[in-house]
Amino acid sequence: MDGERLLLLDQRRLPDEERWVDATDPVVMEDCIRTLAVRGAPLLGVAAALCLGLLARAGATPRAFREAAGRLRAARPTAVNLMAAIDRLTAAAPGDDLSRVDGIAMDVFVDDVARCDAMAAHGAALIADGDGVVTHCNTGGLATVGVGTALGVIRRAHEEGRRVHVYVDETRPLLQGGRLTAWELRRLGIPHTLITDSMAALILRDGRAQRVFVGSDRVARNGDFANKVGTYALAVVAAHHHVPFHPVAPWTTVDLGCPDGAAIPIEQRDGDEVRGAAGSFGAVRWCPRETDAYNPSFDVTPASLVTSLVTDRGVFSADDLRRGALSALDG
Amino acid sequence: MDGERLLLLDQRRLPDEERWVDATDPVVMEDCIRTLAVRGAPLLGVAAALCLGLLARAGATPRAFREAAGRLRAARPTAVNLMAAIDRLTAAAPGDDLSRVDGIAMDVFVDDVARCDAMAAHGAALIADGDGVVTHCNTGGLATVGVGTALGVIRRAHEEGRRVHVYVDETRPLLQGGRLTAWELRRLGIPHTLITDSMAALILRDGRAQRVFVGSDRVARNGDFANKVGTYALAVVAAHHHVPFHPVAPWTTVDLGCPDGAAIPIEQRDGDEVRGAAGSFGAVRWCPRETDAYNPSFDVTPASLVTSLVTDRGVFSADDLRRGALSALDG
Repeated sequence: MDGERLLLLDQRRLPDEERWVDATDPVVMEDCIRTLAVRGAPLLGVAAALCLGLLARAGATPRAFREAAGRLRAARPTAVNLMAAIDRLTAAAPGDDLSRVDGIAMDVFVDDVARCDAMAAHGAALIADGDGVVTHCNTGGLATVGVGTALGVIRRAHEEGRRVHVYVDETRPLLQGGRLTAWELRRLGIPHTLITDSMAALILRDGRAQRVFVGSDRVARNGDFANKVGTYALAVVAAHHHVPFHPVAPWTTVDLGCPDGAAIPIEQRDGDEVRGAAGSFGAVRWCPRETDAYNPSFDVTPASLVTSLVTDRGVFSADDLRRGALSALDG
Repeated sequence: MDGERLLLLDQRRLPDEERWVDATDPVVMEDCIRTLAVRGAPLLGVAAALCLGLLARAGATPRAFREAAGRLRAARPTAVNLMAAIDRLTAAAPGDDLSRVDGIAMDVFVDDVARCDAMAAHGAALIADGDGVVTHCNTGGLATVGVGTALGVIRRAHEEGRRVHVYVDETRPLLQGGRLTAWELRRLGIPHTLITDSMAALILRDGRAQRVFVGSDRVARNGDFANKVGTYALAVVAAHHHVPFHPVAPWTTVDLGCPDGAAIPIEQRDGDEVRGAAGSFGAVRWCPRETDAYNPSFDVTPASLVTSLVTDRGVFSADDLRRGALSALDG
């Protein structure tokens, strides 16, 4: 962002190429969100906020602003951060007065960095020297504007000098673990091993990992949460092996208006993502296009499988969640 | 097989191309086994037996026969059918007399067909009209010379007129489910849906599948069994959702000399299989070659997660396995 233009690192092209896309235009931003050029629940909120902030700064009409806000708000249905950020901006633009929008957008940006730092501090305290951890999807600097959520926690423990080995599952079908998290861990110099999603159970069974950290796209009031598909299976195998399981999410991911996991909408994506693999590395398809494929982008993990939820406002145990601690912290 | 040559359907090239490889030469057969041109525990036994049978028929010296038998026996360490078939042939060739080898090789072939039929009959009785089933890897006609093991059971229920819907997981890293099982189900006209491995937990949670059927590469005396990596995770999620879980294997897969799962050797394969995907569909890599990757080809599922084991000699419940029913049936 240079004050006039909003440039996004195109995550579809990573790790092969670092290409930046000009997403100043809300129509382009919407496309970037739908096609996952920009992804990661917290980053979606920040990117949409900055886009609307620049639009207001450039002198858009209130009608154009509201049209753009509506367009971006509907781009992906599961992650609530996108909607929360946009609601914060529209609440700051009562009537036709857009004068405060740009400043609030910057607040959303700065808040994300601060929230990541707070989560990292709270979560890193859970990691002991020599621990192995399993993580899923990508929850690092690519998913936020700060240090990340689950990966931010791991990074902080590493930076504090504790030895940690990360087992990163590839995260089929879109391979965010194999493409993005492995790339981030490499740049950060954190020891790691790539596994297929189905191998996490073996890592936990064999005592190679002591904790599981994942991100979240929406946390319901009761502590149920949605995250990248595959999270639920990971939670089940963690519980089977009595390995602590921690979603890590900023408070902007908590949706107190959502009573439980059943109320979280789950985006269904094209079956071609499952019938093959595609990205900057190329595109292959190993199953006929006519084959029926199921492709929910997210799944819901019940609070009963959560050991504790790490947020920027502190760590909530399963008991805290059961007692309604999230609602109690509202405001 | 035409009496002189042994032709194998190259499974690396399926489903895009049906190419046959002349694997009459034991050196070629060994390569076909190592590179998975031929795969599937029962088929490995039959293919190796036929190869040695033709070698004997062609007038090989006893030394050449023994050298070939040793070469093939060591080609893959986990599946016991390969070793069992070769041991049956070498036992039929005492001293330097190879006269019976060819006939015994044909017996191995014919036995596989009969064992598949018996397994299919026993297992199909478990499937009710309208059931959904989850399966893993490829266990159909491509993995045996008969109707298959787990997929043979499903096929029999379908042929008996019961409606069954198969959720076939893709089976990373080598995609035998997405490439081979989806292809077989399509040819058989059995309704099916392709999923990623991590989605099986959702299918079970949502009540879409009532049973899980998988194959096996080796069953230990206590009922622990090895199968394609990912089987253990599937067994854990099945147990969590109280969905019956059934390995299906011919008696040639039962290794009474192996006390339990810990004694089953697990083949480790090249990490490139996890860093990308390759096959007749092309080859892609999304993770740097330097990234450490874990790639056990198989995993072990404990008997405690097995509802019942389906074999050609009948169905063994978890209680039967605990009581040593496999040893009792020896001979």
